[in-house]
Parts: sequence; C-alpha cells; structure tokens
Amino acid sequence: MSELSTAPELIASNKCFGGWLKRYKHQSASTGTEMVFAIYLPPQAQSKPVPVLYWLSGLTCTDENFTQKAGAQRLAAELGMAIVCPDTSPRGTDHPGEHDSYDFGSAAGFYVNATQAPWAENYRMYDYVVDELPTLIEENFPVTDQRSISGHSMGGHGALICALKNPGRYQSVSAFAPISNPINCPWGEKALGGYLGDDRESWKAWDSCELIATASERLPLLVDQGEADNFLSEQLKPEALKQACEAAGHPLELRMQPGYDHSYFFIATFIGDHLEHHAKALGLK
Amino acid sequence: MSELSTAPELIASNKCFGGWLKRYKHQSASTGTEMVFAIYLPPQAQSKPVPVLYWLSGLTCTDENFTQKAGAQRLAAELGMAIVCPDTSPRGTDHPGEHDSYDFGSAAGFYVNATQAPWAENYRMYDYVVDELPTLIEENFPVTDQRSISGHSMGGHGALICALKNPGRYQSVSAFAPISNPINCPWGEKALGGYLGDDRESWKAWDSCELIATASERLPLLVDQGEADNFLSEQLKPEALKQACEAAGHPLELRMQPGYDHSYFFIATFIGDHLEHHAKALGLK
Repeated sequence: MSELSTAPELIASNKCFGGWLKRYKHQSASTGTEMVFAIYLPPQAQSKPVPVLYWLSGLTCTDENFTQKAGAQRLAAELGMAIVCPDTSPRGTDHPGEHDSYDFGSAAGFYVNATQAPWAENYRMYDYVVDELPTLIEENFPVTDQRSISGHSMGGHGALICALKNPGRYQSVSAFAPISNPINCPWGEKALGGYLGDDRESWKAWDSCELIATASERLPLLVDQGEADNFLSEQLKPEALKQACEAAGHPLELRMQPGYDHSYFFIATFIGDHLEHHAKALGLK
Repeated sequence: MSELSTAPELIASNKCFGGWLKRYKHQSASTGTEMVFAIYLPPQAQSKPVPVLYWLSGLTCTDENFTQKAGAQRLAAELGMAIVCPDTSPRGTDHPGEHDSYDFGSAAGFYVNATQAPWAENYRMYDYVVDELPTLIEENFPVTDQRSISGHSMGGHGALICALKNPGRYQSVSAFAPISNPINCPWGEKALGGYLGDDRESWKAWDSCELIATASERLPLLVDQGEADNFLSEQLKPEALKQACEAAGHPLELRMQPGYDHSYFFIATFIGDHLEHHAKALGLK
C-alpha cells in the first residue's frame, strides 16, 4: 500500500554555471518508498519559469551519474532549460533477489509498472516518472508545463516509451543507446519477465518498437548509438527501432557514431546536440 | 629502492569529443610503485603533436575525477590540447597508517618528495609529476614539449609549486581552490609534518606563498576560489596567496566566485576559462 506523496526536502545544493543543482528526497505515492531526484535550475529560473528536460538513466545508475558526468549543465544554463533526473528504481526495500544482479531490481526499474509480486507494490517507475514526478516538479519549482524527455540505455528506452504512450505530454524525445526492443533481448526479457510475468503479450505495451506501430503522435526521434558499444548487437538493437519506424512512417534520426562506446564519455560528446533538439521543441531557440 | 620505469600499458580507452581518453599503468622509478595516469588526446593529435596541460587532483581523488566530472575534453578537443591526469599518490603499498585518513598517505601525496621513513621510499610525487611523467608522456605520445599545469585543492597547490620551483618548465599555471599556504593550515601541517618531519623550516620549500617571495620566473597566476567553499578560511587561505603576490610583485588574478563550493561543479563551471588561459600561453589561440 502506497503512502501519500510528500513535499520535496532538500538534501544537497551546488552552484553550477550560474544556476543551482539541487537534490531532494520525498515520499513517493507511486513507489511507496522514499525517492531521491536531482533538478538543475538554470540562471533564468531565478526570474521566470523554464521548461524541463527529464533525463532517465541506465542500469546501475542513480540521479547522480548524469549530473556529474554528462556536462549538460553548461548548455542548459545557456538555453534556460531545467533538467530533472530521477533515480532508476525504488530504494530501501529488500525483496528476495532485489539487490543480487545489476540488471534486475534495485537500479534496474526499467520504467515500467510491475504487475508481479513482490515487485508490483514498489516497482512503479513508469507512474512515478510520467505522472507523480512532473506534478511534484511543476508544483514546487519555477518551471512551466513544457516537458521533454531523454535518457540512456534502459533510460533511453524509458524515454521512448514514456513519450510514445503519452501523446501530447512531451514536446520532444531523444535517446542515447536505448534498449530499443526489450521484448527481444536478454536484459529486456529478464526485466519484463520478472516485473510483468510470463505472458509475453503483456510485455508489448512496454516495448518501443511495438508502440511505434500504433502511435497516435509521431514525435521525431533523435537517437545516438555508438558503433563500438559492447551491448550493441545483443541488447540494444537499433536496427529493430529503425525497421519499426520505417514500417510505421515514424520520423527517426538514428546517428551511428563510429568509435563511441556505451559510456558517459559518449553521452557527454553528443549531449549538446540533444539539448539543442529539445530546446527547439521547447521554444527556447 | 626504486625499480626502473616501464613503458605505459593501456588499460582503458574511450572515444570522447572526437579524440581519445586513455588510461595507462606503468612502473614508476620515482615512486617504486605501479602508477596509473589518464591522457586525453584531442582529434588534432592524430595529425600533429599537441601541447599538454597537466592536471593535479585533490585529496581522495584518482586520475578519474577530472576526466569524468570537469567537462574539459569538449574544449580541449576544440583547442587541440592534450590533458594528462596523474594519480594523487603511490598505490599498492601498505605502510602503517597509510590508508587510515583521507588527508594523509594514499590519495594525499601532496606533490612533495617525502624525506621521512617510511614515506621517503615511495611518496615522491613531485619527482613523478615534474620529471618522470612528462618525460614518459613526451616519449610515448604525439605531444610537444610545451606544458602547462593546473589542479584543484591539494592539486591546485601542487600546480603552483611545480611551476614556481621550475622556471621555464611550464608555459602557464592556474589553480582551483588551492591550499595556498600549507605551512599554516591543518591539512598542510599534517601532510608536511608527516612527509618532511618536524623541522618546519624544511616545509617552506613546498609552500607556494614562500616560493613566490623568491621566484625567478613570474608566470601570471589564474586562481578561482568559491566563496561558499567549506574549506575556505581554515585550509585554503587565498588571502595569504594574495598577500604573498602583492609583496613580491607576482601577477595574480584571484577570482572569488560567489556561491560556489569546493566541488567539481565549481571546477566544471570555470574550467573553460582556465583552458583558454593555458591555450593562449601554449600558442593555441
């Protein structure tokens, strides 16, 4: 049973590029746990509300990987864009097996709503990211209701499904090395099987390639993928995303980047292009 | 007894902003231990030798803090500047007390040559940073002999003393929140007392304020210091640096930055200005 959501409580604050990077904790109604998130408020937010880019991180991450390693605050400060980084799973619970592997349970919530015990009680990261967190952000911070979404790997796919399942909710979407077709790769099969159970039909509501076929809104997808990414062929499968987009007539800019791997050095290199993409959609350019 | 130096052996490689961030290990003659360092080679290094900025990190750090958190590779790739990041102490030894505190022993070498047992055998970070590492870099990588040096906190002071003690060796120097006057602050007293012994006169050869008084080369100092830095008044003492420079006529641009703390978010905010400072001295602008 979920407890009610509580107001965000500040736990850390650092001035950065003239704005402020702040970390908060709050009780989440979606997950029934305490959740931590980070928000970067650019200098412009001191005088007017600014739009928000939501960033969803990948397996093993917290809210801190992106804020420390992507170098995004520099351009966000120039553009006047807030960035909100949620955690990658509920924390503080201790279900059997929850902390035993890097690709399931803690830090691996996959941005779905689990239906299987014991996960269904807390692993509701989709509701948290799509509904609860934006509501909390828009009630408590100097931001507008203009939202974009991006992420990396598990979070890149999370960004795609959040946008595809919610027409009109985001102005733009992009992804770095997303797990494009989780119903057909080991990471996805493990996660969706665990959170959703054995009925593979039920997984399709959480797979970007499936969702693209029937999407009612066709926001252009910007996707960067390193060609030297160790997970490329077995887990990420950008060709499946490409085929799904071609079949459905969904606009996709898939940029294969020679020599780049799965790390934050890859993200840092191209995050500027993604922020520019979102800034245009958010009316900042 | 030191073993001979060995050639660098690649341990990691990531493409980043069109160049390559590489980590190497090698046996150091200075420290008698294996040492790890990182080098960022910008795209320009694929066709011609480039000058090098040496970055010295602070207490608790390794070569990785700067490469992951400062966001320096973006501008280094634009400017055509390599960046070399050594570790902050020898590793792999286990002297009594070596790993007991964050501000002495491992990850706290203070860029001095220790004279006291048991530290004198391995804690020779000054020789390593000033002589051995640049020789190794210039023999093994596509770089020129044009060098600049910068760093943070313990490493900010390290950069100052490396430059002040070696006229002509560096084209430029800068520092973030340096421990400006270690002979007069708790961090410095603990480190210099441990590595150099009780004779405080011997410490003066490793204190930037003392060295400024008699410097034979007066490279302009660029120093950024956050006004909200928790270590400002007790440990960092920029006013001592300012007084030493004023007394000696040493050029100093000390920039007090309102609201900024001691973190890498502070460094990331101003690293661009420092790279521009070094780029001019290195003939890149």
